[in-house]
This record gives sequence, structure tokens and C-alpha cells, in this order.
Amino acid sequence: MKGRNVLRAVVVWLVGVAPVAAEVRQAIHFPDLPGYRTLKCDLHMHTVFSDGKVWPTVRVDEAWREGLDAIAITDHIEYLAHKAFVTADFNAAYEIALPRAKEKNILLVKGVEITRDTPPGHFNLLFIRDGAPFNTADIFAVFDRAAQQNAYVMWNHPGWRQRPRWGEVQSRLAERKQLKAIEVCNGDEYYPEAFQWAIEKNLAVIGCTDIHDPSLSPAPTPALHRTLTLVFARERSLEGLREALEAGRTLVWFENCLMGREQYASAMFDACVRIHPPHHRTRDRLHVEIENASELNIELERIGDAGPAKITLPARAISLVEIALPTGDPPPLAYRTRNFLIGPDRPLPVNLSIPAAGK
Amino acid sequence: MKGRNVLRAVVVWLVGVAPVAAEVRQAIHFPDLPGYRTLKCDLHMHTVFSDGKVWPTVRVDEAWREGLDAIAITDHIEYLAHKAFVTADFNAAYEIALPRAKEKNILLVKGVEITRDTPPGHFNLLFIRDGAPFNTADIFAVFDRAAQQNAYVMWNHPGWRQRPRWGEVQSRLAERKQLKAIEVCNGDEYYPEAFQWAIEKNLAVIGCTDIHDPSLSPAPTPALHRTLTLVFARERSLEGLREALEAGRTLVWFENCLMGREQYASAMFDACVRIHPPHHRTRDRLHVEIENASELNIELERIGDAGPAKITLPARAISLVEIALPTGDPPPLAYRTRNFLIGPDRPLPVNLSIPAAGK
Amino acid sequence: MKGRNVLRAVVVWLVGVAPVAAEVRQAIHFPDLPGYRTLKCDLHMHTVFSDGKVWPTVRVDEAWREGLDAIAITDHIEYLAHKAFVTADFNAAYEIALPRAKEKNILLVKGVEITRDTPPGHFNLLFIRDGAPFNTADIFAVFDRAAQQNAYVMWNHPGWRQRPRWGEVQSRLAERKQLKAIEVCNGDEYYPEAFQWAIEKNLAVIGCTDIHDPSLSPAPTPALHRTLTLVFARERSLEGLREALEAGRTLVWFENCLMGREQYASAMFDACVRIHPPHHRTRDRLHVEIENASELNIELERIGDAGPAKITLPARAISLVEIALPTGDPPPLAYRTRNFLIGPDRPLPVNLSIPAAGK
Amino acid sequence: MKGRNVLRAVVVWLVGVAPVAAEVRQAIHFPDLPGYRTLKCDLHMHTVFSDGKVWPTVRVDEAWREGLDAIAITDHIEYLAHKAFVTADFNAAYEIALPRAKEKNILLVKGVEITRDTPPGHFNLLFIRDGAPFNTADIFAVFDRAAQQNAYVMWNHPGWRQRPRWGEVQSRLAERKQLKAIEVCNGDEYYPEAFQWAIEKNLAVIGCTDIHDPSLSPAPTPALHRTLTLVFARERSLEGLREALEAGRTLVWFENCLMGREQYASAMFDACVRIHPPHHRTRDRLHVEIENASELNIELERIGDAGPAKITLPARAISLVEIALPTGDPPPLAYRTRNFLIGPDRPLPVNLSIPAAGK
Repeated sequence: MKGRNVLRAVVVWLVGVAPVAAEVRQAIHFPDLPGYRTLKCDLHMHTVFSDGKVWPTVRVDEAWREGLDAIAITDHIEYLAHKAFVTADFNAAYEIALPRAKEKNILLVKGVEITRDTPPGHFNLLFIRDGAPFNTADIFAVFDRAAQQNAYVMWNHPGWRQRPRWGEVQSRLAERKQLKAIEVCNGDEYYPEAFQWAIEKNLAVIGCTDIHDPSLSPAPTPALHRTLTLVFARERSLEGLREALEAGRTLVWFENCLMGREQYASAMFDACVRIHPPHHRTRDRLHVEIENASELNIELERIGDAGPAKITLPARAISLVEIALPTGDPPPLAYRTRNFLIGPDRPLPVNLSIPAAGK
Repeated sequence: MKGRNVLRAVVVWLVGVAPVAAEVRQAIHFPDLPGYRTLKCDLHMHTVFSDGKVWPTVRVDEAWREGLDAIAITDHIEYLAHKAFVTADFNAAYEIALPRAKEKNILLVKGVEITRDTPPGHFNLLFIRDGAPFNTADIFAVFDRAAQQNAYVMWNHPGWRQRPRWGEVQSRLAERKQLKAIEVCNGDEYYPEAFQWAIEKNLAVIGCTDIHDPSLSPAPTPALHRTLTLVFARERSLEGLREALEAGRTLVWFENCLMGREQYASAMFDACVRIHPPHHRTRDRLHVEIENASELNIELERIGDAGPAKITLPARAISLVEIALPTGDPPPLAYRTRNFLIGPDRPLPVNLSIPAAGK
Repeated sequence: MKGRNVLRAVVVWLVGVAPVAAEVRQAIHFPDLPGYRTLKCDLHMHTVFSDGKVWPTVRVDEAWREGLDAIAITDHIEYLAHKAFVTADFNAAYEIALPRAKEKNILLVKGVEITRDTPPGHFNLLFIRDGAPFNTADIFAVFDRAAQQNAYVMWNHPGWRQRPRWGEVQSRLAERKQLKAIEVCNGDEYYPEAFQWAIEKNLAVIGCTDIHDPSLSPAPTPALHRTLTLVFARERSLEGLREALEAGRTLVWFENCLMGREQYASAMFDACVRIHPPHHRTRDRLHVEIENASELNIELERIGDAGPAKITLPARAISLVEIALPTGDPPPLAYRTRNFLIGPDRPLPVNLSIPAAGK
Repeated sequence: MKGRNVLRAVVVWLVGVAPVAAEVRQAIHFPDLPGYRTLKCDLHMHTVFSDGKVWPTVRVDEAWREGLDAIAITDHIEYLAHKAFVTADFNAAYEIALPRAKEKNILLVKGVEITRDTPPGHFNLLFIRDGAPFNTADIFAVFDRAAQQNAYVMWNHPGWRQRPRWGEVQSRLAERKQLKAIEVCNGDEYYPEAFQWAIEKNLAVIGCTDIHDPSLSPAPTPALHRTLTLVFARERSLEGLREALEAGRTLVWFENCLMGREQYASAMFDACVRIHPPHHRTRDRLHVEIENASELNIELERIGDAGPAKITLPARAISLVEIALPTGDPPPLAYRTRNFLIGPDRPLPVNLSIPAAGK
């Protein structure tokens, strides 16, 4: 009764690792929040029109395959690595990618990256109408024109190659309320100072890839996903995205961690984790299943008196937890989790509440 | 910006294939049906108490890890391969496994396998109280005692090593309405005749592993899952399971296929496949996303005039489908799918209906 | 004793599928042949300089990562899909890619693809000095100039979108002994007629990707590798590659199959498969381990009297084979294998000879 | 040209993680040392005959599948968890497993585990003739009988559940030169004190699984393999294994690390790592490929002046390394590697020597 099974298994065994399949869309599993759709967004990426290595449509194909809802192609204005061969055109990447984005149901944000030495550093201008006017040396002229186009201004990778510094341009933009967002994570870099500024100065917390090469991201796992931003939007549209970004309703997904404001981190934790009523009770122990619907391997550390010292909830799986208890109802289980950061080194506190067994 | 990413990638690359993780429960994704919970069941397996190779608790651990809801350990009465070393005890496997089943929230059905030369072949007696009385030579005494214990009788692997034959014992059991179920699939074998009898004679359609070795099933994929039975129960309990089995509310998951009665196949298809409103419309084409929430790679073949000749919906993914259309509303899209068999070589016909773009 | 193991396992489990790691070179396991190095080559690919989607250096990065030894970038002369934005320059892709190829130890062949309606179809000119002269309407002028540059001429995908036809241009090239090679496999297409012509007309048997998008090939497995050509060269250099191509010392790796001339198929089979002396002998059975050092899942079918009817040798694994035997020395075991095709539908015959147990 | 590819990719994509294939033997890639075969050994495991969960033949099947050469089944004498159902027989597990071991070409060492409270703790007696005489309360009688049977004595998991203590029994055994080996690693535990004693007291350095459940080890990767011992034997036979164990020619493979005496660690490093002659030289840089033939992700840290500060050599892959150099011949590159420990916290120093480019 096993010949065929073995053959089948052998075939797959030899296949070894699973492929990046061109035409299957992977789902990224972070649930919606009450009242909001959770849009998965990467708002910083490059193509051959600056120093990237791919044609603009590739960014759309990758986004669809990897389960994203929205992307911005943000080629540099000031750094055109391939200009010996590729026309300097600050609108071309968007125009080439747009028809594909419509076919693939990807929200495509028009953008550019302002690329200056630090300070002031690099900035994304998003939701622009025309990229050409930003090709000017005067940085203040750039931001004036950004204002004219009602661009959404984001400060990129503040700690790239140096310690983050809040400079004069940043102050000026903040005064004018023109700086709306800050890249707390860029690719595999994380800038705690930027996270702190985001919280203090009321900027949207953003994470992006800043990808230049083709994406080889194989799967949305805790270790291997692309760095991205979850945006909590009233609807899945460019307008919905813009409104949510203006309101700062975001969390960054970086490595095995979500980072952002406490209210969204807390709402997301509640949306991800479901504790079942105990299915078994022995003299002094409850046996409980806990579901984790998210892509994070959630690690919980006890901060109260009751419950196991640590609880691990693997991503998108059900875990079995034994809770030693005296008699009576389970006491509140107070924990914190480093997977949900509400500030630099500030893990989210959570209360696990076990439903009554009646169900 | 990529050093760390590469290191991380390298680490995982070298990990190569993913493990069978001991303590994570994999979910098997087949949705519930309206009014019913979908229980994933394997009602035929062995331990060292007959000719299996594992201690009974291992079957519970495997079941939990692989996302099952219910199992039956069904050691042979007449074939005790290890009797030189292991006590002949027709209740021991159940009693040893039961405490673990309670801890792990697995429904454990008490059973035995009656093991005779063909005809009549092998039968599982399920939901028994005591295995000892079945250790008797007289096959009719066995079934009388089964009736006394209100056992659920299933005919096992009718085509094992020979062409299936409906024999005298089967006829007798059917007359007495004592035969309730038939194994249409056993491990990697499929018996079309048994499927036909199940439909004609109103027997529950069952698929099992009949596993003897440790389970190495790595994941619930179209190619690699264990053969099992989906049972549509009013509640997740032994009583709920029994009632659903009596009522024949089952589908068998075998390779990349579900098999069973049309009403359940059809309800399951509807529960698995969700067609989104078109997100893009060009002159003569609709662009539609179709979600497949199940573990099957669904293959659709057009039987009507409209729509692509074939549509592939990979398991648990969203697919992009282009539908060439004249003007106006999309016509009904008539297909059939060999992934849902409602009889031997009888694919389920389905109608794909595209929602209006209003969302 | 298992807590940490489980955590580790969980982490990897969640990682799920393995990544395409950017900076690790995968080895493709096909052994060298006596006297020759086995070079893994893909001699047909595109970049943004025609209708491809990547910058030329990406092709080198992919080749290194995927274990190739040699590539040719062969952008179309006549079809410049991105000419509104990318300069028409028939040498640029090579010149841009060359420094990276040197760093990564990839042999980079300079080439172009002549792109005409069928007949005559498309041709690769390889080992050229200058691409510009081929930008002319007169197809015969093209081949004259190819001869002046001592180009290696290959007929591409003869069966693309239609039945292969040996046309007037092909005849003329053959007369002049200028046609040296033919693409028997292109991406996931295979053209049996082309294979037959290769054998009859003494052309090198070639397989390529003709890749336009970024490569997502995750691993060199039987099911998922890129289509490529094994070239048996006296040394790993451009000169060695050219000499071997001129001599027709090639096999194509397509899906789970090698295709080519019998002498190379036979030598490769011998290099891949090693039969160990029997490690165990029972009354009428030999137990033998057989190693398969290649990336193919080799399937052997018995054509003689002795040995199992079928033997499966999974890729890069050791298989255990039981051979029922009378007494005395094992008789010759005559098989054939569809994994090594020496013509359309012509499997290679092989003799398995079991070494004496002395070892 | 891509339809079929996509379908194929989709099929595999959905397969997701790779399986533990029942009948394919995975190779563990650690090369032989000059003059010695590298045997992969797990000398500590359990079955239903003590407190294990599998029938003895399962241990052979697992060993073959996972690429081992030799195992010892070492059921407890004093702890028979299943004695209510399984006969107390201290030879049965060996006798049941032996025929399967012969078929599968696994060297099966007969053994038992002496299981006492700490001190003295647990000991494996290996290469015994008869297990029954060890079933006696007097620990000294046990070791006298072990001597009569010429058993190889190994101290098991010295740090299990407590800090390792060298007790009176250990001293007595050492005086009599009867203690030959010590488990430095057991499952996922590592005991640095035991490693120190092994080096000081000239005991063989051993690592084992002590496995009780079925093995779910999916692949011999740095993160997921079973803990085992590499034994450097003159021949692959029980005699060869015994001689090598007596001589202490071993290394333990634990997580991403080999541990043992310097001479074997050093010889293994040299056998694993091959530096190619530079393939490219720019003004001040050599470009070199380094092959790592082993299952370790080797991490090198510079201790000299020349070369990169860190070099990572992923398992079974070729890495590209750039070495900044003045002019002239490369200086010696002095590194150390924590993947090869020659004592607790003592990384092996290595010299990387780059061959001349002539090859």
C-alpha cells in the first residue's frame, strides 16, 4: 500500500526547496483591524530609470506575487546610474508600470526620491503628479514644488551609513507640517532613533525595501519576508491609502516584529491571537489551544504571577499551552511581547484572557 | 543595506528543506460547511499492539501535529505480529492513547480491525466499548457482538491486492443495515468500484491511511498530505462525529482530489472558491481575482461557451484570471472540476458567477 | 532534553519554503566526463537592451547564483521593445555585464539574436566581436558578416508557435557549414524534430532559457532547474567552450531528462551512477546500494530477464535495490532509461553491472 | 514559452515544504580524512523495549534514511516504562532490528543503558554479547560483567538536569581504564565540563540523540540534523568502528559545530574547505572562490592582519571572497572558526592559503 506514496514523496524530496512561483500570489497574513483594511505596502523601490536593475513592470509583478496591495516606484532624481543608456525621464517608470498595475490590482503610487548628501539626506515624495519639476538643485524649491503637488513627504533611511541626525531641513519641514513620515526600517536596517522621532513628532512609522535588484523574496515568513508597512485604510484605494498614511495608521513589519503606535500594535495583537476555551482540565492544570493567525512567531514573556514564564506562538499555527493553576477561575495572565514594539525597546504589554469552557 | 539580509538568507538556504516540527500543529484548510464543522479524520491506523511500529501515544502526537480532529486506532484482532513480546490486549492501545488524546484535544474513537482472508476481507468496528469479545473465529458472532456494542461497521480497502468483490458477508451486513461505510481510499490506493458501491448502496465514503510506520507526512499539501476523511459534524465531539458518519456526511481527501456525494462536494466547492468583483476591465476583457481557500490545486475545464478553456486555482492562493467577453454582463461560466469527484470518473459541474464590480 | 530543539524546529518550520539566497552559489551536480569538464551553459537570454526586463549585470548574478559556468546575452537586433527609453546599442549589454562576469568567474559569450519572421526564424550569433554590423535588413548579409566575425551560428526555437520547418536559409547555412547548432529545448518547450535534425545533420544539441524576466529558479532540481546545455570542454575557458561547441560535445538538461548524442549520454550515465558491491545476500536475493550523483531522478526499465521491472534512482541519493537471483553470479542487468534520450523517443540502453562483493 | 513552466512551478509551490521521504537515503556530507572513512554514528537510542515509542526496526529505517552508518539501540535496563505490556527482554531490541540492519547496510551495535540516579548517572555499555546479566542492582557487578563481555563503556549526558559531577564510580572506572567515552552532547544539550574531561582524561568525545520518539529529522542541515558522532575508522565495519572508538578518533556534530580533539578538527577543516586559485585580480583585490564541502555554515574570524574581518562559507556551497591586498603574493591569512571547537570555548585556528593563479 505504499509504493506510489514513496514515489510521490521521492519526486518531491528531490525537488528540494520550493520555488518562487511566477504566477501565484502569496497571501500575507495579517488580519484587518476593526473598521480598517490592512494594506501591505512597500513605498520605496527603484528601477533602471535610476540605479535599479529591473524594468518598472517587474516591480508590479513582484508585488502581486508577494501579496502586496500598494507600491511606490521612487527612482532617484539626482542619481541616474544608467543615464548613458537610459533616458532621464522622471515620469517614465510610473507610466510604464501603470497598465500592469491595473491588470494586477496593485495600487501604484507615483513617487520620486530626492537624493542629497546628508544632511539633509534622502526623501520620498509620494502621490505626486509630475516628477520633472523636482529636478532642481535648490532643496527648498523641491519642497515648495512638492507642496504645490500636495506630495506626501517621507524622510528615508535616516541612519544609512551614519548615526541619524535631525537636521535643519527636517526642522523646517516639520514646522511647515510637510514632513509626514519617516523610514524606521529600510531593507535589513532598523533605526531606533527614527522610531523615537516618529512617536514623539507624530510621524507615520514606515518600513520599505528600497529594493534595487530583482526581488528574490520567497515567502512571507518571519525570517524571509520583505520589510514593509501595514497601512490601516478605510478602503483599498489610493485615496484610502493616502488618508491612512496622513493619519499615521501604520505598523512596520521588520524581521519577526511589528513596530508602531501602541493603539495599532494592540489592536493587531488582539486581531492575531485567539485563545480557545480550555479543552481539558486536570487537577491543577488547564490545557488551552491558542491560535496565532499572523506571520509572526510571537514570543510572550510573563510579567505577572500566573502562566508559563514564556509562551511561543508560532506563526499561523495553533499552539498547545498548559497553565498551572490553583482552583477556581484562571487569574489574569499578564505578558509582554517583543514582537510588537511600541517604541525603541518598548514591548507591548498584553493580557491573555482565557474564555470560559462553556463556549 | 543588504549584509544582514544575505546572512539570514544564507542561514535559511542551508536549512534547505523545512522540518516536521514536533510541537506545531499544522492547520488543514478545508472550510466548514453551512451548519457543519469540517472534522479531519483518520479512522484506520495501527500500533505495536498489532503489526504497527509505534506506541499508541505516537498516533495522537502525529494527529495533533498534522491538524487532525479525530482518529481511530484499529489494531488487528487476528494478526498480532509482535505477540512474542507485546501482550495480546484488545483494549490497551485505546487506554494508553486516551489521556494523551485528552491533553491534545484529539477525538479518539475506540476501534478494532477484523482481519479475515478475502472474502470477506477486513472490517473496522468503530465506537466499540470493549475489543476483547471480537477475538473469536466465527465472523457472524463478531458482527453480532458488534451490533450489541452498537459498533459502526466499515469495510476496509476492498481492492487490496485484488479486484474488489462484494461478497456474501457484505450482503448480509447490508441487509441488516449494519454496514455503514466503505474505504474508497486507503493510503495511496483508490478503489473506484468501492466508490460506486458507496454511492449506490448509501454507504459513507471513507479514506484512511491504514498507517503502520511512524507518520512522516510533512505538510497538508495537494501532493503530500495523508489520505483522510472530511466529516461534516454538527459539533466537534465524539457524538457529533458519530452522527455525521451515520448520516454519510463525508468527503475523502485523496491526493489532489475530494471524493464523495454531490451535495457535499458542491457545498465544499462553494465554500472554497470565492470570485472577487472584477478589478479591471479593458475593451473586451475582465480581470478577476479568484481565491481558493482549500488545500487542493483546483483545475477547472470549461464545458460552456464562455471563459478560458482551463483555469487553475492553486491551493490557498489568489489567482488572476482574464476573461474575454463581448460587452455587457458576463455570461454564466460553466465548468467542471476533476478535483471534486461525485462518482468514479464523474467530475463535479460548477457555475462560476462573477459578482458585479460594485464590490 | 528537547526544549531547544523544538524552538529551533519551530523557527524553521515557519520559515517554510527555502529562499533564493542572493549570495550563495548553488552547485549543479553533473559530473565531469573522462577528459572533459562539464560546463553548465545558458546561451540565450535577454536584457532591457531588447525586450528583457533586467539590467545586464543581473544575468551574471543569476548565473553565478544558479551554478552556471557560461552564459551568452543575446539581445534581439530587430526587436527593441524599450527603444523609447533605452539606447539602441548592440554591444552595450555585453560591455556592461563583462566586469561583473570577471568578478564572478562566469564565462561571458558575446552574442546577438537575429530575429526574423518564420521562415527563417531566429538565430543566435555567438562569440561575435561587434554587434552593430548585424543591424541590416538583408539576412544573407547578416550571415556573411557573421562569417567574417567567425560567429558560431545556432538556430533558435525552431518550433516556436508553429511546426518546425527546415527552410531555405537553413539549407544555405548548412551547405556553407555555417549552421553549427540547434535549440532542441527552449524554456519549457521541446522540439523533437529539431532533435532529429541535430542528430542527422550533425548539429550541436542545445537547450537554453531564452529568459526575459528575472530568474526565479530556486534550485537545480529535476522539476525546477532552468533549461540548459552541458558542454564537455577540455578546459573551463571561452576557448574551451567554443572548441567543445564546434565539436558538438553537448547534452541538454530539460525537465528530468538529458538529451543528446549517444556517446555523451552513455558517458554521462556511467559517470552518474555507481553500483556498490552487494552488502547483503539472502538465499535468493542481493541487496545492493546504487548511488546517483546527478540532478536527475533516473528511471530504469528492464529490457532483459533479470532485475526488478523498474528501478528508480532519486537524484543525488543512494537507493537500496533488491535483486532476485538464482544462485551464482548475477547475470547482466539490461535496462533502458527515458532520462537519457539519444534521439526523439529513443531511450539510452544501459547495462547495470554489479561488482563482486569483495570490494 | 512559459505556460508549462508556470504550471510545474505552481504544483511544486503548493507542495510547499519538502517531505521526509521514506525510501530515500540522505547523504550527510562530511568528507573522509586521509586514511580513514568518516562514519556517521548515533550510539544512544531507545525503543518500546524501555521507554521509547517505536519498534526496534524503526531505528534502522530512520538511520538509513538519514544517512547514518552505525547505530546502537541502548534500552534502559532499570527503566521499563511499558513493562505492563512489553516483555522485559534485554536482547530483544537488538535481535529484532538486526535482520533489517543487514538489509539496509547499517552497522548495528548491541548495547544497553545502565540507568542509575546521579551519581553515578547513566552509562551505555556497547558491543556487548548479552544484555541480561546487567539486570542487577550492584553497580560494580554491572561493570565487572561489562568487562567480562569486553563492553565499551560510555558515560551518558553528564549534565542532564544538573551540573556535571565526576563521581566515585567515574573515578573507579577511569582507574580501571574501563571508561572510554563521554557524551559531550545529548540531543540539544551540550556539557562543556564533559568536553573538558574528554580532552583531559583522554576519553572519546561522543554526541548522540538519546531519541525516544520517532525521528522527524528532515535533513542534514546546520540547524536541523540529529546530534551525532563522526568516527574516523580504518574500514566500515563493526570492528573498524570499535577500533576507532577505542582510539578516540571522533568529532561530535552538534548544531552548527564540530567538537573534538584538535588533530581531527584540523584534518576535517582541511578536508572540507578548498580555496581555488584567484580567478580575477584587480589593482588591489583578489577574487577567490572557496568551496565548503561540509554540512556546516563555517564562520571564520580574522586573527591576523590580512583578509576580511569575517568570512562566511555556507554549507555545501561555493562562496566568492574578495581579499584586499597590497602587491605581491598574498600574505598568510590567519583565522579561527567557532564551528570547529577543540575544547570548551576554544575555536580552531586555521591558516587559509591561496593557491597561485596558475592552477
